[in-house]
Amino acid sequence: MRCWELCSFGPDGLAPGERPEPVPGSCEVLVEIDAVALNYRDLAIARGVYAPAQPLPMVPASDAVGRVVAVGAEVDRWRIGDRVIGCYMQSWDRGPSERADRAHTLGSPLDGVLCERRVFPAGFIVRAPERLTDVECATLPIAALTAWCALFELAVARPGETVLVQGSGGVSTFVVQLGLAAGLKVVAVSRSAEKAAAIRALGVETVISSQTPDWGKAVLAATAGRGVDAVVDVGGETSLPQSIAASAQNGRIVATGFLGGLSATIELGPIITKNLTIRGVTVGSRASFEAMLAFIERASFRPVIDSVFPFDAVPQAYQRLASADQHGKVCINLRETQPRETQPRETQP
Amino acid sequence: MRCWELCSFGPDGLAPGERPEPVPGSCEVLVEIDAVALNYRDLAIARGVYAPAQPLPMVPASDAVGRVVAVGAEVDRWRIGDRVIGCYMQSWDRGPSERADRAHTLGSPLDGVLCERRVFPAGFIVRAPERLTDVECATLPIAALTAWCALFELAVARPGETVLVQGSGGVSTFVVQLGLAAGLKVVAVSRSAEKAAAIRALGVETVISSQTPDWGKAVLAATAGRGVDAVVDVGGETSLPQSIAASAQNGRIVATGFLGGLSATIELGPIITKNLTIRGVTVGSRASFEAMLAFIERASFRPVIDSVFPFDAVPQAYQRLASADQHGKVCINLRETQPRETQPRETQP
Amino acid sequence: MRCWELCSFGPDGLAPGERPEPVPGSCEVLVEIDAVALNYRDLAIARGVYAPAQPLPMVPASDAVGRVVAVGAEVDRWRIGDRVIGCYMQSWDRGPSERADRAHTLGSPLDGVLCERRVFPAGFIVRAPERLTDVECATLPIAALTAWCALFELAVARPGETVLVQGSGGVSTFVVQLGLAAGLKVVAVSRSAEKAAAIRALGVETVISSQTPDWGKAVLAATAGRGVDAVVDVGGETSLPQSIAASAQNGRIVATGFLGGLSATIELGPIITKNLTIRGVTVGSRASFEAMLAFIERASFRPVIDSVFPFDAVPQAYQRLASADQHGKVCINLRETQPRETQPRETQP
Amino acid sequence: MRCWELCSFGPDGLAPGERPEPVPGSCEVLVEIDAVALNYRDLAIARGVYAPAQPLPMVPASDAVGRVVAVGAEVDRWRIGDRVIGCYMQSWDRGPSERADRAHTLGSPLDGVLCERRVFPAGFIVRAPERLTDVECATLPIAALTAWCALFELAVARPGETVLVQGSGGVSTFVVQLGLAAGLKVVAVSRSAEKAAAIRALGVETVISSQTPDWGKAVLAATAGRGVDAVVDVGGETSLPQSIAASAQNGRIVATGFLGGLSATIELGPIITKNLTIRGVTVGSRASFEAMLAFIERASFRPVIDSVFPFDAVPQAYQRLASADQHGKVCINLRETQPRETQPRETQP
Repeated sequence: MRCWELCSFGPDGLAPGERPEPVPGSCEVLVEIDAVALNYRDLAIARGVYAPAQPLPMVPASDAVGRVVAVGAEVDRWRIGDRVIGCYMQSWDRGPSERADRAHTLGSPLDGVLCERRVFPAGFIVRAPERLTDVECATLPIAALTAWCALFELAVARPGETVLVQGSGGVSTFVVQLGLAAGLKVVAVSRSAEKAAAIRALGVETVISSQTPDWGKAVLAATAGRGVDAVVDVGGETSLPQSIAASAQNGRIVATGFLGGLSATIELGPIITKNLTIRGVTVGSRASFEAMLAFIERASFRPVIDSVFPFDAVPQAYQRLASADQHGKVCINLRETQPRETQPRETQP
Repeated sequence: MRCWELCSFGPDGLAPGERPEPVPGSCEVLVEIDAVALNYRDLAIARGVYAPAQPLPMVPASDAVGRVVAVGAEVDRWRIGDRVIGCYMQSWDRGPSERADRAHTLGSPLDGVLCERRVFPAGFIVRAPERLTDVECATLPIAALTAWCALFELAVARPGETVLVQGSGGVSTFVVQLGLAAGLKVVAVSRSAEKAAAIRALGVETVISSQTPDWGKAVLAATAGRGVDAVVDVGGETSLPQSIAASAQNGRIVATGFLGGLSATIELGPIITKNLTIRGVTVGSRASFEAMLAFIERASFRPVIDSVFPFDAVPQAYQRLASADQHGKVCINLRETQPRETQPRETQP
Repeated sequence: MRCWELCSFGPDGLAPGERPEPVPGSCEVLVEIDAVALNYRDLAIARGVYAPAQPLPMVPASDAVGRVVAVGAEVDRWRIGDRVIGCYMQSWDRGPSERADRAHTLGSPLDGVLCERRVFPAGFIVRAPERLTDVECATLPIAALTAWCALFELAVARPGETVLVQGSGGVSTFVVQLGLAAGLKVVAVSRSAEKAAAIRALGVETVISSQTPDWGKAVLAATAGRGVDAVVDVGGETSLPQSIAASAQNGRIVATGFLGGLSATIELGPIITKNLTIRGVTVGSRASFEAMLAFIERASFRPVIDSVFPFDAVPQAYQRLASADQHGKVCINLRETQPRETQPRETQP
Repeated sequence: MRCWELCSFGPDGLAPGERPEPVPGSCEVLVEIDAVALNYRDLAIARGVYAPAQPLPMVPASDAVGRVVAVGAEVDRWRIGDRVIGCYMQSWDRGPSERADRAHTLGSPLDGVLCERRVFPAGFIVRAPERLTDVECATLPIAALTAWCALFELAVARPGETVLVQGSGGVSTFVVQLGLAAGLKVVAVSRSAEKAAAIRALGVETVISSQTPDWGKAVLAATAGRGVDAVVDVGGETSLPQSIAASAQNGRIVATGFLGGLSATIELGPIITKNLTIRGVTVGSRASFEAMLAFIERASFRPVIDSVFPFDAVPQAYQRLASADQHGKVCINLRETQPRETQPRETQP
């Protein structure tokens, strides 16, 4: 079976590989992979900055959709031909995370999905939403589910509340799409006019430049001094202090990433007087994934795809991700042979 | 000041009355009433079946919108001219209800709103949403807020979940409108083809006849055997057993009324094995009202109005309500002099 | 391997049997059973009234403690010699229950624990608390965990709140012990003076006779008219109406059983005006079990044991349970050869 | 009426004053103050570092117990002679805080309680627990209620969970006492052997020196590597990073103060991977106060009193507080004429 392997950390660490044909155990299914999406995490792993102790070689990437091609003897939930998506955390079934779950994530430390076929436990795949293409489905396991859990499980955003999103990366874009479809008001900050336009195209009315010094105050001003009820913070070090400033009384900030740095200096005064809540999230459970899919199946938005590469061009896909120029998800389609750059799709909320 | 008074229980109990001009205390405001909406509760009170110990005469009705015409010395939240809606429960500020709140409801035991002017404590009126007419605003305090709290505070319905509504009364219609606007799937049961059509016109795809014996099973079937996540039950005795049958694992049923009778016989087996939750609700707090208005202000649906009567025709409005023929809310407009029957508005969710 | 089998429904349905020696799979462990506790459910199953469609013969009973004697190749959580307790629901890991969990319960439909050795998935056993004897540990999986989840997960009882318990059965006794140890006030109703004395011996000050007509009102009176914050209802048909009457504003009633009948007639008026919550519970998850054990390990109470029978005397244990005379749990000790009647232990809360 | 006034910020800012006899309005009560307790906040206000824009002169202090000596015409909850405690936040009735509540706190910006008599709105006093002395009651409004809300409302600590407390100040001491009485396990860090001994005397088994570098790791080690479920953080800048390190998966940290500084630098990695929650708290509502009192009334611990000063010796009480030598609360008894140093009471949990 063909696969890609991360053989060493650094720019040339990816190489095509060959692995034995996987065989499902009695409680497992074998999935033929159709499409894969990359995340910033994959780039950080390849660079050796995310999990430098990871034993190599390893099959990278976490997000994949495919079709069931074989089922173990004790599996009754799946049939051959079912279109399924793998769960990023292969042990988090439902309820709160547990410490041991951190050792069961695809694409490090577990082998990932950049391979022709992969075995999954029957309980850690979910049914792909019919209305989405393979490539669109592949974008969901990390970025969409992080956005979903941040918004609806950790921030517990209610209809009519205002949520602040930062930039136009994968998680933030899904926060916009999920939030608008669920009756939230969305306010965004963005680095550039071009990205601001992309965010507005999704239906966001208020976009503030993150070049504004103390942009948290600008968000306050844009909400008539009230502040936002929820923030999905992706920047960490650079954004968390502004997220705190921008928050309303009883505001909830969900820390999902640290694109701007790992170590944030925060003021306790407003956290205490505004009774703020800051929570960290790492994607979500299989049950949360299924809850999100029940919503997505009926919603009208589509995931934003930046570009689609064939399986042979995985290194180019990583380069596209490294460019930070992309708008939307960078994907690999195992059924295509030519690279394809998609236009930023204008999505109605 | 002119008002209507309930002078005796029964069909002819309503009479025009005269009351002294009200004067606001230091923490109160005086509101000139512009429009009033009736609820089934008002009819039950007038018939003497709801609160037969209520001392008479009493000014009836609970739902009103108006303008602030005088403010007490210590009030800084309101200005003359502010368009405001009264809270049904005049002591429930936020958080959970308390027993004492049950003695502070408008239109029994407190005097109601069918009068030209009324004094309110500054803390128990809310700002009317600008996009709605006076008559539309008047429909919100009981029916819309009951629907809101049932859905989002008691059933804690999440985007993508399925909610069951019963019939096309005031609460149920708001459940449909609020639910669809917040990304819920709505399934309805309805007595007649005509009412089913009205429900479909609001955007509901699945409407099941409540004439079907064991219609709870029909709802189960309509949800692929899974059942509904939430029910806003309005029938009580006649509907609660079916609501239980129709519920999914971990389903939540909110009892809001008892149009079908006060005493329900329920099966404990499915409540226990499906881990169901049944909760009773009585409207909601001032803070919940404001949360709902933040949502309604940005939503696009409009309250469904059945008919609008002038102040002189209050008994006719009660008769319209008693006919049970209405579709939508029966209202009184103190600024109109001619009765007006509105067409059921087709509302986009 | 020796076991007991339910070969037919009815008084003589239990018979000693022989099964092949069980062999653990790669993710399983083999447990040598040391002690078993019976539940009312086991009696109902043997009588054919609980799950009459259950295929026979079946190994009965759900609650067991034992020692790990073999571990599968991929199991790293357990070592040979570990003292463990099986989870009643062999698929409910954490978070909310799911419909499929109902098919994975020990002692019907799955084979139970009245056997010398049994294989368990590594994820559905928990570590036995060191301070308790084998027989005491065996009482925990159904009765204690139902009490724990009812009190702290479904009723969400807070320190200082008042909980109502009914009778002195297994679940109710654990509600008393867990509740008092967690700072709750406990009020009880009881059928007989003798049982009342046993409840008082656990530390309950207020015990009301369930022979009192409308005993719900007597509970109200005993709480200065305020009512109880939480009820763990075990009677269903006969008790639920009284539980509703006895509840305070925002009271939470958890339905755990139906000793008094399956079909309850309830008044909606107080449910609505008091904003009550009624929830059904079926035991709990592996994570809830572990949370309870962290508490029990440090608490000072001990489970109340009525009697202990040797493995050869299983039918006599069932007879003891059927007598309804027992106070505390009826247990089987596979390491004892003589029956033993324990005295009701006076347990300090 | 005699009172104390803060006339200027700084060491000599307190002076005896005279104010007109207060007269209750129709919804108010007049309370004769019997005892007052000081908080660190009072010291910070007197020094001008807490609310430097506060207009002076102002009656300082927030925590008082007294007796009702007059009631307004519309007040039916209180009778003359009722022993009552004032709520710190004079507008937060129940549910979540709102922004406007921050302007209604006793002792800044509102006039405080260091006076012979004070008028309170009838809704913002609570009944004093009978089993406690006046001075003990006076300690509850800020320190105990902060501890209560932090533990049970914000951290939502469940029986059997482990909570970390820091030092032996007012809030931390109440966290120990409330936590142990509600079945929590408590781990403490402490600066000195003397304070550690005082904490152990309350029933805490594990006390770690906060002089240990990276004491968060020492807490982890003391919990078998698992970490603590909840932290009531009082140090802010100096302690928050250690609180994060010491937390278990899904741990909840409640920020209640900033004795160590206002600006904390925190690592986002563990917040995200451990799915931590950090929340800020400012005391609590009237309803939370009453919930706590229902618990305290039945618990057996007593508030720890450091010293009691007569009304004439208020400046000496402030000096005692400034010394940072105290163990327990510094109080003023308006019924005593001699200062009194109490011995640290050994309190059984």
